[in-house]
Amino acid sequence: MIPARVIERKRDGHALEPDVLAGFLEAYFRGEVPDYQMAAFLMAAYLRGLDDEETEVLVRCMLESGRTLDLSHLPGPRVDKHSTGGVGDKVSLVLAPLVAALDVFVPMMSGRGLGHTTGTLDKLEAIPGFQTDVSLARFKEILRDVGCAMIGQTSEIAPLDKRLYALRDVTGTVSAIPLIAASIMSKKLAEGLTGLVLDVKVGAGAFIPEEERAQELARKMVAIGTARGLPTVALLTAMDRPLGHAIGNGLETAEAIRCLRGEGPADLRELVVVEAAEMLRLGYPDVAPAEARARAESKLDSGSALERFVRLVEAQGGEPRVADEPDGLKTSSVRIAVAAERPAVVLEVAPRALGEGVIALGGGRTMMHQPIDFGVGFEVPVSPGDQIAAGDLLGVVHAKDDDGARAGTEILRRAVRLGEPGERAPDVRPLVWRRLGADDAP
Amino acid sequence: MIPARVIERKRDGHALEPDVLAGFLEAYFRGEVPDYQMAAFLMAAYLRGLDDEETEVLVRCMLESGRTLDLSHLPGPRVDKHSTGGVGDKVSLVLAPLVAALDVFVPMMSGRGLGHTTGTLDKLEAIPGFQTDVSLARFKEILRDVGCAMIGQTSEIAPLDKRLYALRDVTGTVSAIPLIAASIMSKKLAEGLTGLVLDVKVGAGAFIPEEERAQELARKMVAIGTARGLPTVALLTAMDRPLGHAIGNGLETAEAIRCLRGEGPADLRELVVVEAAEMLRLGYPDVAPAEARARAESKLDSGSALERFVRLVEAQGGEPRVADEPDGLKTSSVRIAVAAERPAVVLEVAPRALGEGVIALGGGRTMMHQPIDFGVGFEVPVSPGDQIAAGDLLGVVHAKDDDGARAGTEILRRAVRLGEPGERAPDVRPLVWRRLGADDAP
Repeated sequence: MIPARVIERKRDGHALEPDVLAGFLEAYFRGEVPDYQMAAFLMAAYLRGLDDEETEVLVRCMLESGRTLDLSHLPGPRVDKHSTGGVGDKVSLVLAPLVAALDVFVPMMSGRGLGHTTGTLDKLEAIPGFQTDVSLARFKEILRDVGCAMIGQTSEIAPLDKRLYALRDVTGTVSAIPLIAASIMSKKLAEGLTGLVLDVKVGAGAFIPEEERAQELARKMVAIGTARGLPTVALLTAMDRPLGHAIGNGLETAEAIRCLRGEGPADLRELVVVEAAEMLRLGYPDVAPAEARARAESKLDSGSALERFVRLVEAQGGEPRVADEPDGLKTSSVRIAVAAERPAVVLEVAPRALGEGVIALGGGRTMMHQPIDFGVGFEVPVSPGDQIAAGDLLGVVHAKDDDGARAGTEILRRAVRLGEPGERAPDVRPLVWRRLGADDAP
Repeated sequence: MIPARVIERKRDGHALEPDVLAGFLEAYFRGEVPDYQMAAFLMAAYLRGLDDEETEVLVRCMLESGRTLDLSHLPGPRVDKHSTGGVGDKVSLVLAPLVAALDVFVPMMSGRGLGHTTGTLDKLEAIPGFQTDVSLARFKEILRDVGCAMIGQTSEIAPLDKRLYALRDVTGTVSAIPLIAASIMSKKLAEGLTGLVLDVKVGAGAFIPEEERAQELARKMVAIGTARGLPTVALLTAMDRPLGHAIGNGLETAEAIRCLRGEGPADLRELVVVEAAEMLRLGYPDVAPAEARARAESKLDSGSALERFVRLVEAQGGEPRVADEPDGLKTSSVRIAVAAERPAVVLEVAPRALGEGVIALGGGRTMMHQPIDFGVGFEVPVSPGDQIAAGDLLGVVHAKDDDGARAGTEILRRAVRLGEPGERAPDVRPLVWRRLGADDAP
């Protein structure tokens, strides 16, 4: 294996033999291939592609670079959910306790905010005292006792992916479908799961906005999981508008808790129920789809899901009172209600502008390890197609000071695009646009 | 200038604004952009291309990274020749003293053997005592006194090119036309020339074998020279067979000296005369083409060129006796004459096989700074189309021991491909295939 020859073959569009590609990746992990050769390879792979066999080699090398969890001590199925990331996506916080209440173990490893999206770990840490960096031993205990546990990626899982991701981030090679698919799946395959649901976002607020490329990503990931014996279902869901009303860490956590209480926006509840039903059926394939939905809804309405959430928060050191007083998570000192100045129709609620707005208000990161303000963000109760009267609320800006409030108001007014009353808003994508199971992967 | 954004724009096929590209290159040169980001950029540039304006920015940044020679003290035109490298190409050793004898100063900076080709510096160092690493001050003195001087690239010239070349060499990004063009031209533009002849090789033994890509390289280089006010002519010349008969450092030097003595292979003499005439006319545009040729031939035949060569060798510390006894440069201990076993026609003399054969015999490098054996190589007096009788000489192998001689014989027999007597050999390319001057560049 001569590194420059491997790079040249990929540059010229050839598929690499599995042992050649594996030799290259393993040599990189051992430090024998320098970052600059890997960077050239990643760019060649970005522009020339990796086929399914090459992607599988990448997954295997990432997986084998670290350890794999053994969760066979748990007396039941183990199913996780991964989202490719969207604006206002607080589903995980509702889903993990809900699915635990359905007798499926949920060993969830999540990430921080990335680019214009907030991250599950940050939302959890908006809860006073909540610890996301617990040991793997403690993670297993909580999982057994509560039915779910929510932590960050540990450095023991797929460390090769961690190094490659850091390099991709600074060399313009993040958004290649096979690289994304391998990165996500290598981590999920290490979790010791018996089933996996993937939420692949499509639309302007997604990292891969285009329908065709998002479908290709979903297809690749389902194929990887299936080939390795992990039953995997991908849902392609709408990210042409934010999910729910709240955008910003603490605001989203509060909204998630309201969903757990049977309240909150309908689109959030619907996506939670759909994903919970998929996870339940991966754990118990005999349950019919309609029955799975009904059980999920009942656990939300009965308070069982909320009860699991409280146990989870307590187990991970957090303040359980937030379950009763979710509005206590709205900690910003300045709040500005933004109203419509004239009658109008809402044409668009631009997700990316609002996601980037959270960063501008101090609620997101532009560099790793930056401290963030959990209180800032937006609440936007309107949706595309809504008819608005003069004076109606378009949204609330949560900011740390008056300057932030002014900037946030500007951002909100631009993100909520208004048309003349009676004007037809562009069609929005159905919330759950496509579903891809093992049978749909070629 | 955010490095990752620059890489992404090139990745997506956009042309970069001059100040953005220059900022990126300058930051790399200052050490603020790491090798891994430059490697990703180079691969993106390889696969997406650089347009003429971007290539010009690259040339400018390389040129400005180092110093530029001022040769205005010389009382006459200053013209150099650069070859993209071919098997058996010993033209420079004849050309520099010949053109000096035509009253054109030749400040020649050359390279070492690269891949399957030998290099001018190595051929010069086959002459006992010859120094190629003289100071720039001494270089100028020799140039003034002899009319020509031949040294290696100094680290003061285009150091950015040197760093980029080292990185390209290990990241599969050497053979991109704009990168090659910028690398060659930045060095030549630093030499303080008033004219430049480029010998761009085409055919199986060239680094860029394909006609179309070789023409594109020639066109780019002529455009770069012309845009910067350096009159530049490119000749596209045949490299589907070796040039001359000798391949290997000392053997080639001996053949070059025979050419200076008015002897030696016709193709070598012809290419020398064509290139000398071009250089003379760049120095003295009033001289008509036929007159330029005639003057070059007469300087070879009169011994004037040889006399300059002797002065050059003496000035650079070498043993001038080689001019009278060129066969003294044939220093290998084992020589095997390889004869035809049956009547045949020569279909092909494969240049790359013979060039790589020189490395196999110990006469070339696989790593920088490796010591090499100047004596080894091949003499192949046959050409495609020659009719051969049984027992006729196909070539002589020069090796350092019997093992080498055996391996060399095998290589030679394979490189000289024979057909049935009377069989038609494939057409060979005319020695000088195309000529490209400033008027031909768009």
